[in-house]
Amino acid sequence: MSTKQKVLLLGATGATGSSILDGLLDANQFDVEVLVRPSSVEKPSVQQIKSRGVPLRVSDLSASENELVSTLQGIDILISAIGPHDLLQQKSLVRAAKSAGIKRFVPCAFITIAPPQGTMLLRDEKEIIYNEIKSLELPYTVVDVGFWHQISFPCLPSGRVDYAALVPNTTIHGDGNAPNILTDIRDIGRFVSRIIADDRTLNKYVYTWGDILTENEILDIVEELSGEKVQRQYETIEEIEKKMEDAQSSLSLDSADPAKRILVYVTQYIYSKYVRQDNQPRYAEYLGYLDARELYPDFKPISFREFFTELLDGKGKRPYGQ
Amino acid sequence: MSTKQKVLLLGATGATGSSILDGLLDANQFDVEVLVRPSSVEKPSVQQIKSRGVPLRVSDLSASENELVSTLQGIDILISAIGPHDLLQQKSLVRAAKSAGIKRFVPCAFITIAPPQGTMLLRDEKEIIYNEIKSLELPYTVVDVGFWHQISFPCLPSGRVDYAALVPNTTIHGDGNAPNILTDIRDIGRFVSRIIADDRTLNKYVYTWGDILTENEILDIVEELSGEKVQRQYETIEEIEKKMEDAQSSLSLDSADPAKRILVYVTQYIYSKYVRQDNQPRYAEYLGYLDARELYPDFKPISFREFFTELLDGKGKRPYGQ
Repeated sequence: MSTKQKVLLLGATGATGSSILDGLLDANQFDVEVLVRPSSVEKPSVQQIKSRGVPLRVSDLSASENELVSTLQGIDILISAIGPHDLLQQKSLVRAAKSAGIKRFVPCAFITIAPPQGTMLLRDEKEIIYNEIKSLELPYTVVDVGFWHQISFPCLPSGRVDYAALVPNTTIHGDGNAPNILTDIRDIGRFVSRIIADDRTLNKYVYTWGDILTENEILDIVEELSGEKVQRQYETIEEIEKKMEDAQSSLSLDSADPAKRILVYVTQYIYSKYVRQDNQPRYAEYLGYLDARELYPDFKPISFREFFTELLDGKGKRPYGQ
Repeated sequence: MSTKQKVLLLGATGATGSSILDGLLDANQFDVEVLVRPSSVEKPSVQQIKSRGVPLRVSDLSASENELVSTLQGIDILISAIGPHDLLQQKSLVRAAKSAGIKRFVPCAFITIAPPQGTMLLRDEKEIIYNEIKSLELPYTVVDVGFWHQISFPCLPSGRVDYAALVPNTTIHGDGNAPNILTDIRDIGRFVSRIIADDRTLNKYVYTWGDILTENEILDIVEELSGEKVQRQYETIEEIEKKMEDAQSSLSLDSADPAKRILVYVTQYIYSKYVRQDNQPRYAEYLGYLDARELYPDFKPISFREFFTELLDGKGKRPYGQ
């Protein structure tokens, strides 16, 4: 009989969830299953997970609490990497996790360090879930990862890294000197595997990082490795604020429009990272986060330099499978 | 020139504030001043503080941020023991404290251990202020104290402790077995004086306690010390919930009525303490609180037994100066 911890992962086909699934399987110390909606079972991305030998548990988060509790039977650790538009659907999952005796719930965090309330809509909705968890005294760990290497590089005049860029750009925000916590998306799952097996992280917030870099430092690395000179576009603090306010106004007129929500997320990320300069270790420590690199000094993350070297070698991949 | 830390206390004439003022003055290691509203300067309670040699700083919290910043000049530690109806007025104080370079802000907490959001209106409004603090990266310490000895004793058939009872009663809630964190109100200031001089409590939550007792344990102590048999009134979980829901409904119809707010506070306290059973060390630890008794093992708090012995000796005092 297996004595491995049984881990159930929700959102395994997403960008963050895929990394977590890989990390859990590679760790070879968990019994891993994935939670999928009935409507998603036949999707190729889900079938592909199944073909890797990962058992599926099938349930809608809108199911009755009884059904959800039954779906969670035997699970020790529940990890949610649900999509940004569905965060509040975790409420029923939190209640079911409490009833099912889940030993650790990892809610969908996996973003930058930001104030708990009032700066980023995406963070505010996560806070609602964290408060639900705390109200139920459900054991938890919040894992934030900063911004990904994969969406933190400028494009080159030659165009040779455009293939891996979500939105090709060469923008410097403000003076380009705000330090930011960066994690390679492939490292998220490797970090998560360590964190969920660690008693020290129970009922704690943890942040991961591969590098702490400013945009100017990123430019230096990119120019050095590529031998090209990046054509900088500067965006001022005032322009950043204006774009964010416009996005917020637009969403307030049509709050159900996913495209408008995404624009709010994106512009608020930029405001938080470069104007408020939230996404850095000092603020994480102030907010009570543990530093995953201090917890796991032997962990070798993928540095931005290694990541960009791979990009130049044509080994990059555009995030979100696009 | 003094090298003492300069402490400014808001709400020094209140029940909690008076204890804090006494504790700060007795500690003899701080330069203490109090912050009062212009309209309060001539009140006897304020003049009495002045007559103890404590300097007054006079400002309305509704003043401009510039004026507030100027009022806070030279202050190292700012402690707020503002009244429960005015909690949100601390928003401007938080912003001014950041601008004035306050080294530690102690917002008005000083209540029971409770969920950050959704269980107690009083706690919810404090959370808004904590989030404002965190958004500004203002150094802070939250100090919660559980419930006071002074409002946690049952009355005796002889009536001899009624003189010190806020609301004489002999009610047992539920089965009377919920443990509760209790602090003698006179110890709050003594604890606060230790906590604000301690680097370990910076940007942390701390709870104080003199005793951890259930209502049944309190009854045992009271009956043993008095030699009287308390006539128990039992209130069921359902009755507690009904009273709370009625109070909430009543407030929702007239949200500005202070008496209705107080009834919501009182009934939600009872629900949180005895139905949810939030106010205990296990939940405090889960929520990330430090235990003041672990931090200060030499601290001798006033036990409930000592407190009730004083009551029987006629040395008690009704809280809130009534």
